[in-house]
Amino acid sequence: MERNNVIRIKCSDQKGLIAKIAGVLYNNQHNIIVMKEFVETVTETFFVRLEISGELNEVKLKSELAQVLPPKSEIEIIPRRKKNVVILVTKEHHCLSDLLVRHYFNELHAEVSAVIGNHETLRAFAGKFNIPFHFISHEGRDRIGFEKELMKAILVYKPEYIVLAKFMRILSSEFVAAFRDRIINIHHSFLPAFKGANPYKRAFERGVKLIGATAHIVNDDLDEGPIITQKIIPVHHDDDLNDMIEAGHEIEKSVLADALKMVLEDRIFVSGNKTIIFA
Amino acid sequence: MERNNVIRIKCSDQKGLIAKIAGVLYNNQHNIIVMKEFVETVTETFFVRLEISGELNEVKLKSELAQVLPPKSEIEIIPRRKKNVVILVTKEHHCLSDLLVRHYFNELHAEVSAVIGNHETLRAFAGKFNIPFHFISHEGRDRIGFEKELMKAILVYKPEYIVLAKFMRILSSEFVAAFRDRIINIHHSFLPAFKGANPYKRAFERGVKLIGATAHIVNDDLDEGPIITQKIIPVHHDDDLNDMIEAGHEIEKSVLADALKMVLEDRIFVSGNKTIIFA
Amino acid sequence: MERNNVIRIKCSDQKGLIAKIAGVLYNNQHNIIVMKEFVETVTETFFVRLEISGELNEVKLKSELAQVLPPKSEIEIIPRRKKNVVILVTKEHHCLSDLLVRHYFNELHAEVSAVIGNHETLRAFAGKFNIPFHFISHEGRDRIGFEKELMKAILVYKPEYIVLAKFMRILSSEFVAAFRDRIINIHHSFLPAFKGANPYKRAFERGVKLIGATAHIVNDDLDEGPIITQKIIPVHHDDDLNDMIEAGHEIEKSVLADALKMVLEDRIFVSGNKTIIFA
Amino acid sequence: MERNNVIRIKCSDQKGLIAKIAGVLYNNQHNIIVMKEFVETVTETFFVRLEISGELNEVKLKSELAQVLPPKSEIEIIPRRKKNVVILVTKEHHCLSDLLVRHYFNELHAEVSAVIGNHETLRAFAGKFNIPFHFISHEGRDRIGFEKELMKAILVYKPEYIVLAKFMRILSSEFVAAFRDRIINIHHSFLPAFKGANPYKRAFERGVKLIGATAHIVNDDLDEGPIITQKIIPVHHDDDLNDMIEAGHEIEKSVLADALKMVLEDRIFVSGNKTIIFA
Repeated sequence: MERNNVIRIKCSDQKGLIAKIAGVLYNNQHNIIVMKEFVETVTETFFVRLEISGELNEVKLKSELAQVLPPKSEIEIIPRRKKNVVILVTKEHHCLSDLLVRHYFNELHAEVSAVIGNHETLRAFAGKFNIPFHFISHEGRDRIGFEKELMKAILVYKPEYIVLAKFMRILSSEFVAAFRDRIINIHHSFLPAFKGANPYKRAFERGVKLIGATAHIVNDDLDEGPIITQKIIPVHHDDDLNDMIEAGHEIEKSVLADALKMVLEDRIFVSGNKTIIFA
Repeated sequence: MERNNVIRIKCSDQKGLIAKIAGVLYNNQHNIIVMKEFVETVTETFFVRLEISGELNEVKLKSELAQVLPPKSEIEIIPRRKKNVVILVTKEHHCLSDLLVRHYFNELHAEVSAVIGNHETLRAFAGKFNIPFHFISHEGRDRIGFEKELMKAILVYKPEYIVLAKFMRILSSEFVAAFRDRIINIHHSFLPAFKGANPYKRAFERGVKLIGATAHIVNDDLDEGPIITQKIIPVHHDDDLNDMIEAGHEIEKSVLADALKMVLEDRIFVSGNKTIIFA
Repeated sequence: MERNNVIRIKCSDQKGLIAKIAGVLYNNQHNIIVMKEFVETVTETFFVRLEISGELNEVKLKSELAQVLPPKSEIEIIPRRKKNVVILVTKEHHCLSDLLVRHYFNELHAEVSAVIGNHETLRAFAGKFNIPFHFISHEGRDRIGFEKELMKAILVYKPEYIVLAKFMRILSSEFVAAFRDRIINIHHSFLPAFKGANPYKRAFERGVKLIGATAHIVNDDLDEGPIITQKIIPVHHDDDLNDMIEAGHEIEKSVLADALKMVLEDRIFVSGNKTIIFA
Repeated sequence: MERNNVIRIKCSDQKGLIAKIAGVLYNNQHNIIVMKEFVETVTETFFVRLEISGELNEVKLKSELAQVLPPKSEIEIIPRRKKNVVILVTKEHHCLSDLLVRHYFNELHAEVSAVIGNHETLRAFAGKFNIPFHFISHEGRDRIGFEKELMKAILVYKPEYIVLAKFMRILSSEFVAAFRDRIINIHHSFLPAFKGANPYKRAFERGVKLIGATAHIVNDDLDEGPIITQKIIPVHHDDDLNDMIEAGHEIEKSVLADALKMVLEDRIFVSGNKTIIFA
């Protein structure tokens, strides 16, 4: 599905930006296959994502774009290739298994380099698909020690994104800062409802009539990072807590897969605690 | 749509309840058209709603059911007729207009006796449908005085239910207690997210990807009453606050109409802060 | 919600179109507020819709755009103003009442000039909102005679769009041709399922688990015109035919309102029997 | 999730059925945990599904129920245990992989005895989960020969259900009759739209705004069997045929999993070409 090279620009808004960008591309013999733009009026920021045809000269193109755009513009020229991803898990399989099956059948738009678990539970499953599995326990050590070892294991693979596929440990600000806007999490509620622990239990006790799941980019604030996508599923009075959890798993894996697709196709801009998504 | 007489029973669970209830009905020549039951295991409570055919002898039936059921059972024999409803509004029209149009075309399953507004805004619209409109301002008086006048105006109509159709005043515990489980509210978020004021503004600022609406029964705790139904609608980064409010209105009126249908057809039991709904 | 002037262009695809269009706008001091484009690869056609700021000189702008675009390009410069609409009905009220209430509260983005019914049923309702109602019976005359009178009544109002809000007569090719791409219909099934008459009855008999509604632009082929939007609602084995019809009404009015919003904001291009919609 | 023994009864409707059934259960010391019933008025048929507690004496219970029920009643006493299932596939993996992963993690409510493919494509995947895979080619032989070998391979496993998980061959009436109401198929459209071959291609060409999937019980008439469940997903003008197919796969596997859960928990009655589902 990732067919074309991508250009992404984030800059302060001003008149004539599209004319200037389109002009540079035209002069460089690129055809614009798809172009989606958005002006965030609150911050007066212009965002654009383009898919272009034609041979890429990244350095020349970036330099010419920089000349016509405002100072401090963020310009990304992204040649099409699969991103490298590391997946973190705990015990629940449903998100990991969904991702590894897609990966095996070449549908994930990413290379999964490794799975890291703070429990051994999912080693056998990862093994079926020949994905390296590392067990790094959080037990018997403090968070600094745990995260240090985690970081070391991750960095070996130089991943572009880290996917928390039901990884049930809270990461420190320092850890998150090391992978700014590159950690994707699935939270098992329709945020901001039921932030924090045990969302299904609290949803059950509150008597809600729909439960949800939220994929978001991780930042310092637990469950407060920019939301990528959310889905809900109806529940009824005869659904007990286990029914809710079982139903929730279906949307958790679906939401994470959808969000990851957007991430891996470079469709997401972050602006403060919001996302701009050119689907 | 309300075709049959209804029996509703709430009692402590024990073996043989269905056999006993069905036996009484059979002996009284009633056929069971529809029967839905639920056992809430946490509270060991049995709930059943039956639609029955045949001539009703309410006193005899209730007495015979009471004889076979556990002590303190709550037994309701409800002959089919339209409920009497008073609607409270502020300035926004979308829920009121939806209900009054349904009422005009005989689709609401209720008689709307009056509309009471704490602003004059919707008087003209109610007038088109010949529904009495009372203006009771909350300005220049304290809540006790305001609610006293509100109560007085409502009681004239002896309503079975009070519908808060975007009524933007918080009601006191005393007021709510006077109409226990008989006040239906529409809240403009998917509770428990964005409880309290300005949910759309807070949803916009949080960057959620779906907004919702919740119809619930009002109890003491603001926005904490038993939830009847909830719906959501997706939003995107290019939806500004006004777009969200506009989109939200569509689900608010839809959710309120759905909830009211359940209420007026006697399909809802309240158990603590939850609802059991036999749709 | 219709805040800006709109430019719409449909032309054969070629390199540099965006650069050329954006250049013309920049030279004319227009800022591009929103721009959405699409290349239909099958037909090699380029579609773009722009919202622009700044004082409009329609003649000059159109002429300059024509100079840089391929021959036979379709260029529309559309100053923001409400469109003029005539609504055709039969007996069912739910779509008409939804539209007239939106119109009354200034939320329809259109002026409703008149309602024309082939039955008298909805005259009283239209009267409440001071909308002229014309009764033109189809009985006792042939289709040519009926449509002639219909056409005459419509043309008095010079409408830009004709809305079939549950108008249960089939219009001739000649009639449709007179309002090419300007007649909007709501069909009570998820087309192409249950084309033709009695869709709910056939859905009930088939035992489907979801029913739908489809808003589309009318062309020669009954129920084959370009689809604008579709929605579905789940149904269950205990929904009888009347329940299905009642549930269907909710999505019919919702789908028609959504589609009309897209139409009235000039967001829809027609390409063959498909629509391109810049939402 | 399958916690209790189940009783299912289908019989002609008459007064007092619930009283009689509940009486027999009470006399046999069974408590009714869940009871769902439905009267199909068109056929005057009564359907009930009960989950009961207590030690089962199947022969005695069936005999006593038969005594109080009308002649020709269909009475099933179903002790809780996993059903035995054989899955038929062609080349597409998404439904099979979804089912095998659920099976591996003990979430399918069934034992998968074997996978049979008319291509070799999915052998390796089935092998990862140690499920026997049989390749039975349809090539170079007529349908009678093909189905004979298929039947032989299936019968070895004595399956209670056969799941067509994107099995792209049409089965003969004779084959279907041998497994009456026991073959579950997933069709890649919201039936009855796009019956037959290439539904996505036809959906794309028609320009629909939603695509769907339908799980149904297979009977003689291709794509006309009783529908179990259906889901849809919205599509847009910029979704090409491949996008539609990719999006469709997500709902195909979800619909099949949902349907199979209903089947394996004995929640489905067939009545003519419809299903009654006690969810």
